Amino acid sequence: MSSLLAEQCAESLRQIRKSKPLIHNITNYVVMNYTANVLLAMGASPVMAHAANEVEEMVGFAGSLVLNIGTLSDPWTDSMILAGRKAAAQGTPIILDPVGSGATTLRTATAKKILTDCRVSILRGNSSEILSLGKETSTTRGVDATHTVTESADTAAELAQELATTIAITGPVDLITDGSRVVRVENGHPMMPYVTGTGCAATAVISAFAAVEQDMVAATVGGLAFLGIAGELAGKTANGPGSFMIALLDALYAITPGDLLKDGKIFEG
Amino acid sequence: MSSLLAEQCAESLRQIRKSKPLIHNITNYVVMNYTANVLLAMGASPVMAHAANEVEEMVGFAGSLVLNIGTLSDPWTDSMILAGRKAAAQGTPIILDPVGSGATTLRTATAKKILTDCRVSILRGNSSEILSLGKETSTTRGVDATHTVTESADTAAELAQELATTIAITGPVDLITDGSRVVRVENGHPMMPYVTGTGCAATAVISAFAAVEQDMVAATVGGLAFLGIAGELAGKTANGPGSFMIALLDALYAITPGDLLKDGKIFEG
Amino acid sequence: MSSLLAEQCAESLRQIRKSKPLIHNITNYVVMNYTANVLLAMGASPVMAHAANEVEEMVGFAGSLVLNIGTLSDPWTDSMILAGRKAAAQGTPIILDPVGSGATTLRTATAKKILTDCRVSILRGNSSEILSLGKETSTTRGVDATHTVTESADTAAELAQELATTIAITGPVDLITDGSRVVRVENGHPMMPYVTGTGCAATAVISAFAAVEQDMVAATVGGLAFLGIAGELAGKTANGPGSFMIALLDALYAITPGDLLKDGKIFEG
Repeated sequence: MSSLLAEQCAESLRQIRKSKPLIHNITNYVVMNYTANVLLAMGASPVMAHAANEVEEMVGFAGSLVLNIGTLSDPWTDSMILAGRKAAAQGTPIILDPVGSGATTLRTATAKKILTDCRVSILRGNSSEILSLGKETSTTRGVDATHTVTESADTAAELAQELATTIAITGPVDLITDGSRVVRVENGHPMMPYVTGTGCAATAVISAFAAVEQDMVAATVGGLAFLGIAGELAGKTANGPGSFMIALLDALYAITPGDLLKDGKIFEG
Repeated sequence: MSSLLAEQCAESLRQIRKSKPLIHNITNYVVMNYTANVLLAMGASPVMAHAANEVEEMVGFAGSLVLNIGTLSDPWTDSMILAGRKAAAQGTPIILDPVGSGATTLRTATAKKILTDCRVSILRGNSSEILSLGKETSTTRGVDATHTVTESADTAAELAQELATTIAITGPVDLITDGSRVVRVENGHPMMPYVTGTGCAATAVISAFAAVEQDMVAATVGGLAFLGIAGELAGKTANGPGSFMIALLDALYAITPGDLLKDGKIFEG
Repeated sequence: MSSLLAEQCAESLRQIRKSKPLIHNITNYVVMNYTANVLLAMGASPVMAHAANEVEEMVGFAGSLVLNIGTLSDPWTDSMILAGRKAAAQGTPIILDPVGSGATTLRTATAKKILTDCRVSILRGNSSEILSLGKETSTTRGVDATHTVTESADTAAELAQELATTIAITGPVDLITDGSRVVRVENGHPMMPYVTGTGCAATAVISAFAAVEQDMVAATVGGLAFLGIAGELAGKTANGPGSFMIALLDALYAITPGDLLKDGKIFEG
């Protein structure tokens, strides 16, 4: 489909391929390798650095900053806050992935602390994770979603206003809102939840779009449509989650801005 | 082959696919990603969490707990003990993978400490690792096996009694014993040792079976037969260790309880 | 091509396959899994261990030691120094990968500290990383190269003398020098920079050659030609970075000493 928003997304992908933005990731041990490969395959330049005595310098070179609490511990949280404050001060987009927020006290508290201490540009999670960050708490079981996207739409818009950020609730249908605009992305493939870190990959892909696009709703929509199309393409050849995971990297490398414009299922309003 | 034990294993796989048990892993950096993908592919729900201030809460939701000392350090050991004691108190199975026990003083001492402080349900390793945990110590070189399964059978049964746990010594033939029952599993493929973390994957797969099956011998046998059959299937299409590793994930997703019943090479007594 | 040097490289590969040398890696979180798989696929035995209270014992069993600062923090640096001093004292080759040196103050300082405190046998990086370690500093953006290999040849020879080590500057053409001999390796594939950790994989592959070959220039040349040939082979079947990464592991397993002799593009002088 073609729309002004879709054209904006395609232009962002063109920019990523051209400028190869450096993405600073402070993320979890499980997905570090796959996240780096996702970013490289799509044309961005990942760097992973978490030491308190270098994150502020490192984020100085970055086009965006990913904070992901998937295997957090207090020293890593401290580094996330340091990097986040520096990023905020210099106007670098921060993309927060609150993995498992709502599942344990530590994760919910840490995600909230990051939201309070840093100016988060984009918050991406499944609905349970996102809902856990509002005034009314919900509980999650591990990192699985227990609420549908539809149930969460109004809450998301309210939350986006409350937290003054752009929110992406991802699932079979992705919901993106900054509190006023609401966009749905319907790309993706049912094999994605069988590969670890596809949610974290979504966050990373969004961060590359955010490094080249000032409109955070457009960056989020672009990243999610792009990854979803890659999933659809991978699903055509995969025999299971292993070959799907590998074909997804190949697809991220192969998809052109024209493909994104043509195959993105982006619905506004 | 069909037997009561094999039918028990097939039923466990059916339960895993149905209930998607949450498996809490405190494991090593090398295999975290692959372990998570193995558990997802087979139908379980992995979570990795190691912070001392959240492991007790996290293990509260888990169907089983994996403790793996592959890249250990003291803070991680402390968290393993905390999670292990909580798991023991609430009756959650603990599966210990003593990676490299016997190779260094720290690893042997840590594995022994976990065995003493927590009620370990299943202990899985190669023969050198397992033998290092008995009263008489053996030495291992890295994590390679230096003793055959056959040599180790009696020692394993004695050790299982001494440590009051179910032991799995894995290799070309897997030996499972709780001190009274002895079962051999002869599934597997010679390419498995060329992929890092297939031993750790065995531990993880067993942990998913242990989350749905109260008989720890049956859970261990089921996990090892299932992974071994997946290896056999992967070996049919693989061109080398890379494609084998990926085909193994596809196989874990594809194998049905009926396949497990039909292809499991499970020998009792 | 065939030469005395190429024959030396082929003989090293034969030795690796025969003796399966244990390689102790203190490396970064991003590449641990892939590095282990690279070493296993080629026939070596990887072990990852980073705890200060076990690295000295572990390195005692090792044929070589890899120090890689890709996701460093101070406790890891301390362990690298401990392991490095022990390795130096016992005559075990140390291969240093100064990931991101020149990009941040911490990384440059840490790489220099390791070079000063330990007797590094081989230093492998891209040109910006290597140049940052000389008296005159250069700056790098992330871990990307900003200087060509050709520009760096003289500086490399000077640096090798200054640091009393063998240096490998890798890129489209690899440059190897110990300050007197200069060798170029022209194997490789343009897809390699799209897979995370191919530089780190080069370091690991070199370390396996260094475990069986006393001539550090020959070990470095052998490792880089071997990995480059594997890249060429992988490039023939790959559809993108994902399938390339997997085919590379298959190729490392399949390539024979004869292939290395035949396909190595090794140029002396």
